[in-house]
Amino acid sequence: MVVSISDLKNHVGEKVELRGWVYNSRSSGKIKFLLLRDGSGICQCIFFKGACDETSFEKFGELTQESSVKVIGTVKEEPRSPGGFEIGAQSFEVYQIAQEYPISPKEHGVDFLMSHRHLWLRSKKQTAALRVRAEIVSAVRDFFDGRGFTLMDAPIFTPSACEGTSTLFETQYFDETAYLSQSGQLYMEAAAAALGKVYCFGPTFRAEKSKTRRHLIEFWMVEPEMAFYDLADNMELAEQFVEYVVQRAIKNRPDEMAALERNTDALAKVKAPFPRLHYKEAADMIKKENPDFVIGDDFGGADETIVSSKYEKPVFVHRYPSNIKAFYMKEDPDEKGSSLSCDLLATEGYGEIIGGGQREDNLEIIEVKIKEHDLSMDDFKWYTDLRKYGSFPHSGFGLGIERTVAWVCGLQHVRETIPFPRLYGRSYP
Amino acid sequence: MVVSISDLKNHVGEKVELRGWVYNSRSSGKIKFLLLRDGSGICQCIFFKGACDETSFEKFGELTQESSVKVIGTVKEEPRSPGGFEIGAQSFEVYQIAQEYPISPKEHGVDFLMSHRHLWLRSKKQTAALRVRAEIVSAVRDFFDGRGFTLMDAPIFTPSACEGTSTLFETQYFDETAYLSQSGQLYMEAAAAALGKVYCFGPTFRAEKSKTRRHLIEFWMVEPEMAFYDLADNMELAEQFVEYVVQRAIKNRPDEMAALERNTDALAKVKAPFPRLHYKEAADMIKKENPDFVIGDDFGGADETIVSSKYEKPVFVHRYPSNIKAFYMKEDPDEKGSSLSCDLLATEGYGEIIGGGQREDNLEIIEVKIKEHDLSMDDFKWYTDLRKYGSFPHSGFGLGIERTVAWVCGLQHVRETIPFPRLYGRSYP
Repeated sequence: MVVSISDLKNHVGEKVELRGWVYNSRSSGKIKFLLLRDGSGICQCIFFKGACDETSFEKFGELTQESSVKVIGTVKEEPRSPGGFEIGAQSFEVYQIAQEYPISPKEHGVDFLMSHRHLWLRSKKQTAALRVRAEIVSAVRDFFDGRGFTLMDAPIFTPSACEGTSTLFETQYFDETAYLSQSGQLYMEAAAAALGKVYCFGPTFRAEKSKTRRHLIEFWMVEPEMAFYDLADNMELAEQFVEYVVQRAIKNRPDEMAALERNTDALAKVKAPFPRLHYKEAADMIKKENPDFVIGDDFGGADETIVSSKYEKPVFVHRYPSNIKAFYMKEDPDEKGSSLSCDLLATEGYGEIIGGGQREDNLEIIEVKIKEHDLSMDDFKWYTDLRKYGSFPHSGFGLGIERTVAWVCGLQHVRETIPFPRLYGRSYP
Repeated sequence: MVVSISDLKNHVGEKVELRGWVYNSRSSGKIKFLLLRDGSGICQCIFFKGACDETSFEKFGELTQESSVKVIGTVKEEPRSPGGFEIGAQSFEVYQIAQEYPISPKEHGVDFLMSHRHLWLRSKKQTAALRVRAEIVSAVRDFFDGRGFTLMDAPIFTPSACEGTSTLFETQYFDETAYLSQSGQLYMEAAAAALGKVYCFGPTFRAEKSKTRRHLIEFWMVEPEMAFYDLADNMELAEQFVEYVVQRAIKNRPDEMAALERNTDALAKVKAPFPRLHYKEAADMIKKENPDFVIGDDFGGADETIVSSKYEKPVFVHRYPSNIKAFYMKEDPDEKGSSLSCDLLATEGYGEIIGGGQREDNLEIIEVKIKEHDLSMDDFKWYTDLRKYGSFPHSGFGLGIERTVAWVCGLQHVRETIPFPRLYGRSYP
């Protein structure tokens, strides 16, 4: 019977067939040890001379790292073995003897590993991080699906920019020019008028010519948008959401956290409510430790850390100056020059993971803003329509998946949080 | 208390506040009727002269279609009312009186509706179809997440083509050229070697200069890939998957099916196992009814219908000639010239919804195929690496979400199965 390593607990004492790859092998006289990985886990298979078939025992030495094999043997409980079970092996068969594997336990440079991403994926920490990613994606969807939201996929090809025109990828769309989406938000505003509470979740693109540990060219973002929510409602939803995602990841993925050597004590404290700081409070805090900071400017990564390091929980900064936020942000009617925006800064110096706020719902104001931002009124006709036909207060936010995965996994660079990262100067493999 | 229309059942007898848009309104002497929609449902609000406040009664006539309002009143059970509840209204407040709404109950042309997609979304059938889409997406993920699969998002930017070079979207990726993904499959093959059973689920792109009811330029595809699966295993998984998705959609979305006037009797029969036809059997079947069909060619839409109309369940066609399938398809070792491929044709003439098969795992053969298909060996170096380092039998398939939604909803055209369709000549709104 063919079984997965993760399913061995249900087959103790049975004869099973495992299929996978040689993770490691060694011989010691009359015993040969094979660590087999099959994608669901790693299992030790032991070949005793006499107990296994003779050919398997003799040919054992031919097995190279990453050779693909099937192993037949009996499942035993063995607490000292990785995974808690081992196989008393009777025989193995080879699918293919692997050529010399380029990734060895010795240290490799980042460039080398990135060029071999298709193989690097097989490493223990990489699979652990990507399993955490999958758990986080699943938690994100369950959170919204369970709260009356409808998934509304936003288009990738868009006729217009929404987050500034300097970082757009352009493509020929038959006889027109189209751009790759930087955010699905504007489309979610239309969708919220149809379905009330909606979210999109897909890849977004920013042509940023910079190499930082927080930026990918292609990254996944979840963007909920809620009809009749104001800024306060928005922050309340965001904190419940982040609590849910983080707590579920550490609860459901303890083995992966261990493989990543991630101490999750700090994450366990990520519970709503989160502190809320007015931009001015945050700016004053930064100014004290970074005298070069200009009050009124956006925060740099180091500035964010000055603020977030004061708290054990993620912290909201709200009411950023209108002039450093996107055109669609509503101005606070009680505070001229401040926008009804909010960013959420993660703990442990991981910086901004959420940006959002309340949207401008007044037709005249949004038209002025579109002009001020040099955007095309024709491209945005559909968007201004939303302010003509039953305009409504609404808010939403976007959470970057890769930054969230990096934070939860304790990874220093977002490149390990997505299966095939796209970075400035890298689109291979 | 602010409540959703879908949640009224929990507030019978209570005074509540609803927020939404005017779906319809009419007056009849001392009674005024307001049909309110809030995205979660539609509810009748009744204003009796004397029972509601005077200003609301007087100003009622100002309410235009799609005006945004809040209504305060008491929840009553009322079986004759849409949704089963109605509101004995006390007052309303206006967010915005809508300008004359462009979409009226009269017939509109498709072009007009597509140009007003951002508003058309609010129509009853459109929201119903998109809720079914969301249910199908959720079912897809639950199916794989519950069976030991790991989600592995495939990249959108790729250095190379995989489904033929004629339908590629190109973009400048800094100093290089990159293409928008036509399929995540090749990447899933690398991922399957790391994690055993994986799937990707994201947007894919084909620059097809044709307007048919089955093609979108931008469409979502789910692509599972399984290590150590052969063609037979692949078909078994695919039929369980399709059964699960279809049965869950009709079970969980009866109201939407009713709104779409979809008779689900045919869908109720979509239960595994599905019939399996060798390409030659299917080709003979087609030839009898379409004498122009050339045996050895791929099937057209009408040809697919000839085959699928013979069955009450979806039908697999397997072992298509190798020369009409992609370079990565494995040839049947027992049947020269035939590939270990399978397509699944839906019932009721909806055509192909799944394409898949077993992948070529031999290094020498895959290198010859890459050359034969005029693909760049450099771009595919990473892909051939998978055949050097522990090559393994593996299979997978891709299911197109929009075609599946069209089938389940009984829609004639895929353009209504995605919030913002991208078609030849259309990228707005």
